[in-house]
Parts: sequence; C-alpha cells; structure tokens
Amino acid sequence: MASAFQIISSTRVTRQGGMLHRCQHAASSTACVMMFAIFLPHCYKDSSATTPALYYLSGLTCNDQNFSQKAGAFQHADAAGLALVLPDTSPRGEAVANDASYDLGQGAGFYIDATKDPWKPHFQMESYIQKELPALVSAQFPGISPTLKSISGHSMGGHGALTLAFKSKLAGESAWMSVSAFAPICHPTACPWGKKAFENYFGSVEDGVEHDATELLKQLAEKSLLYDEILIDQGLDDEFLKEQLCLDDFEATAKSLGQKLTVRRHEGMDHSYYFIAACVADHIDFHAKKLKSLSF
Amino acid sequence: MASAFQIISSTRVTRQGGMLHRCQHAASSTACVMMFAIFLPHCYKDSSATTPALYYLSGLTCNDQNFSQKAGAFQHADAAGLALVLPDTSPRGEAVANDASYDLGQGAGFYIDATKDPWKPHFQMESYIQKELPALVSAQFPGISPTLKSISGHSMGGHGALTLAFKSKLAGESAWMSVSAFAPICHPTACPWGKKAFENYFGSVEDGVEHDATELLKQLAEKSLLYDEILIDQGLDDEFLKEQLCLDDFEATAKSLGQKLTVRRHEGMDHSYYFIAACVADHIDFHAKKLKSLSF
Repeated sequence: MASAFQIISSTRVTRQGGMLHRCQHAASSTACVMMFAIFLPHCYKDSSATTPALYYLSGLTCNDQNFSQKAGAFQHADAAGLALVLPDTSPRGEAVANDASYDLGQGAGFYIDATKDPWKPHFQMESYIQKELPALVSAQFPGISPTLKSISGHSMGGHGALTLAFKSKLAGESAWMSVSAFAPICHPTACPWGKKAFENYFGSVEDGVEHDATELLKQLAEKSLLYDEILIDQGLDDEFLKEQLCLDDFEATAKSLGQKLTVRRHEGMDHSYYFIAACVADHIDFHAKKLKSLSF
Repeated sequence: MASAFQIISSTRVTRQGGMLHRCQHAASSTACVMMFAIFLPHCYKDSSATTPALYYLSGLTCNDQNFSQKAGAFQHADAAGLALVLPDTSPRGEAVANDASYDLGQGAGFYIDATKDPWKPHFQMESYIQKELPALVSAQFPGISPTLKSISGHSMGGHGALTLAFKSKLAGESAWMSVSAFAPICHPTACPWGKKAFENYFGSVEDGVEHDATELLKQLAEKSLLYDEILIDQGLDDEFLKEQLCLDDFEATAKSLGQKLTVRRHEGMDHSYYFIAACVADHIDFHAKKLKSLSF
C-alpha cells in the first residue's frame, strides 16, 4: 500500500484563484489507496476552519475526475465560496475484487459497506464517505469547516447522497446539512441496478432495505428527522428514468410523509454531464444558502 | 462516402432550452465524412437569419466533442444569444492519410490546405473552415446569420483562429468579425509543432510563412486591415508556452504594428480545458459585444 496523504496535482481552475487538488491516500476503511479531488475557492484560508464543503458523489463507471472535467461548476462554486469534495466511486487496484460488468465491482461501490465476500474487505464506501474522508479533509485542509458539509450526487451517487444523508441523521451523528441529487437511483430495492448490487454486496435484496432512500425516508419521518427541503433534478429524456431511477416512488413517499421535495423535470435532458452542467449552479446555490445560514 | 447532411444526436444542454446538435456530412473540400457540433441558444429561430455564431477551433488530438464536454460554455453562450460551431480538427477515416505521432495527420490538420502527398487529397481544413462549413451551417440552420460570425480556438486551434481571421481579411472575403484565442501557437514557423506540420503538409517551413499569425499580421498592417482588438488568454504554467506557443513574438509584432492586443497571463493555469473553462465566458462576451454592435 502507498504511504500517507499526498497531493498529486494542483491546478488553478478559476480566474479568482480557486484551486483543484487531486489527492491520494492509504484509506483504512477500504484498505486500499483512494483518490479524491478537492476544489478550494479563492477565499479558502488554512487559518480559519470556516469554508463550507459540498461533497459530490459520482455515478457508475466514474472516478474522481468526471465532475471536475465536465460539470463546469468551479466558477460558480468559487463565487459562492463553496469547496467541492469529489471522491472516487469505489475502492480500486489489482488486489481489489472486480467484475466484468460496469454495474458491479470497481466503479460501482454503491456507497454501502459490503458484508459478503469477495467484496467485504474493500467495498466499505459508506464508512469511507461518512467518516474517513471528512476527517481526512479536515486534517489536510484545515480551512474546511468540519461541520458545514452537504452532499449531492448523480445516479448511483444520487442514491449515495440521499441514503448517506438520511443515515447520518438516523445515527445522530454529524449530519449532512443539506442534500440534493441529479437523476438519483431513488428506490434501489425495486430496480435492476440496486437489486444486483445488494444481492452481491449483502447477499440479498432484502438486506438492502436499510440502504434505500425511499425506505429510509419512512424511518426519518417516524423520528421527525426530515430535511427542510430536498432538491432533485431529472431529465425526461433520461434512458434510465423508468426502469432504474424510480423517481415517482420517492416522490410519492416524500409527499405522503410531508418531506418537502422540489423535483424539477427537464424536457429534452438526458442522463449525461450536459444535464448536470445545466443544473449544477442551482445545486451549489441550494447548498450554499443552507450552509451559510448555519455559519457564524 | 456517407450521404448528405445528418444530425446524429440532439441534446438539450441549458435550462433555457439551448440545444447541442452533433452533425455529420460528406464534405467536398476534405473529401470525407466530417463531424461537427453546433450549439443553438434558446433564442435561435429558423425563421430569422440573425443569430450570431462563434466558431471554436480545437487543438491537437481533439475532435468536435472536447469543447462541448469540458469548456462549460453553454449556459453563458445561451445568455449571450450566441451560437457555437465546433468543428473537428482534421479529416478522418481509413482512407485518410495518418501518422503515428499525435502532432501530424488525423487530429492535427493545422487549419491549412496541404499541397503535398499523402496529405493533399483530404487535409484541406482551411477551405473547409473558411468556406464549406459556414455555407453548410447557413443552409442547414437558416437562423444563423451568414455574416455575423467570429472565431476563436485553443493551441493549434488558436493558430487556426488567428490565421484564418487574418487571411479572410487579406482575401477581401466575408471576414470573421472578431478573433480571440486560448494559448495559441502564435509563430508556427519558429516552433517544433509548426515546423513539422509545414514541412509535411507543404514540403518546407518557408511555405508556412503565409500561414503564420505573426507573419500574417505584418501583411494586415500594410493593408490597414488590423482588427479593432484581439483577445488572448495564456496560462503561465502552460508546459508549451516557451517552446511551442511563442506568444512573446506575436505580442511584440502586434505592438510594433499598432495592433491592439489584450494578452491576459494567468498565474498557475496550464494548457488544459480547466484553463479554457476559467476564461471562456470572457471570450463569449468579447465576441458577443462585437457581433451585436454589427447586427441590426
């Protein structure tokens, strides 16, 4: 395993002076070397742990670079004074289990902690995103606030954002302050991607109920832990909308439980980063508004 | 050869309704099937040939997709009411000559009309960009103004933008209304990329003098055809700046000739699309301002 934390490249990506750092570190939760990227707005200062951060979880087949290269988000995030943390989607490496299909194994971590072999030793992405990565970010970038953090994601990463946010509230731990998603997998126990992942990583679809946004929302409502508002964008030309994403299920459940949910459906938009790029500024504003209302 | 003009994909890429169309057509100048992309702002209407267009020429190894995916320009272009035309960088196909190196052959057309075999039959990118593509765009997208067009580009495409703009003025033909560039190859007869291209495509570096922005600027000045203003952005961490781009040569020549030139040098920025994404809004504004001052 490689050694400790290392910044492997630093690039100025906004005219104001915002910086993109690609980093690698030996992760204990996933027991492998993990890559992630972090965007620091020009107002970031090591000396004051006040910069809020939005974590963005990518979808199937992606790594830490897709959002950086294709979302066009840095100028807007810089103006909003928001850092962006961009993790990989799974453990990686020759020693890590894999599968020939694109929706299982490396690139398809589903942001859960696997309990079945051969996945269990490394596929611990829930622990990685919930605990290890935020702690590392705070340690290595001391200007990032340890508490002012929100979460978003796309597709599988939208599933990750919704479920990790809900689980953090249910656990009574340092919760994600706000949550949004782009074309999320909303009801994984009811769709082929989710069923396949849960069958492999947990041994059964039933064991995935605790990792399903539509199901978790019910627990959140029971304990009066609903978020103020959730924002979801969805393209109506998205080829995965009907079979894989099941947005209607989540929306109906949210409505029945009193969870305020803004769903914006966009004619002519698909599942690609063009769709993300068209909507990302509004997500940055959504989270920045919430995070700034909490800062002092 | 494939048949006539065809739109192969259409994607909504802005919330306002801006559309990205990828197109292919059997080009006569390059004697092969060419791909290009066009972004139409939401205000575009087939019924009125008034939408101004900015042509963006890509750099070595790129095709029609790099800018679309990585520049993050569509939201800003939509707000400015500007169409974007995004050509490929060379002829393509099995019947087209090629070279194993990245800086010659397919992906490296240099926006000139080659006179030497094996390049001559297809490597006619100057004719393609100057005449065939604008005529095709006007015919297929009748809402695009045939006269309100400007040109920009990156690296090899910056060389293309500068030289095609200057040559169109010298030829007294429908000139590009304004020109800008990102990290352009400014003096190709004095750099390895340009020398290699001209030796192969023309048979000698000397024959490249008529295709060198720094040299052409002298002809422009002699005939009092200088542009009002040229905008160039350049990253100072660009690995190609000293050996390949020769910005200082162009800047000194412009100064000596009275060509107004705004060069913005950016600390910490490199040669990548992160640099382009950071600066592209200003280029859109630069061209939109000029084009709108000419529309009625």
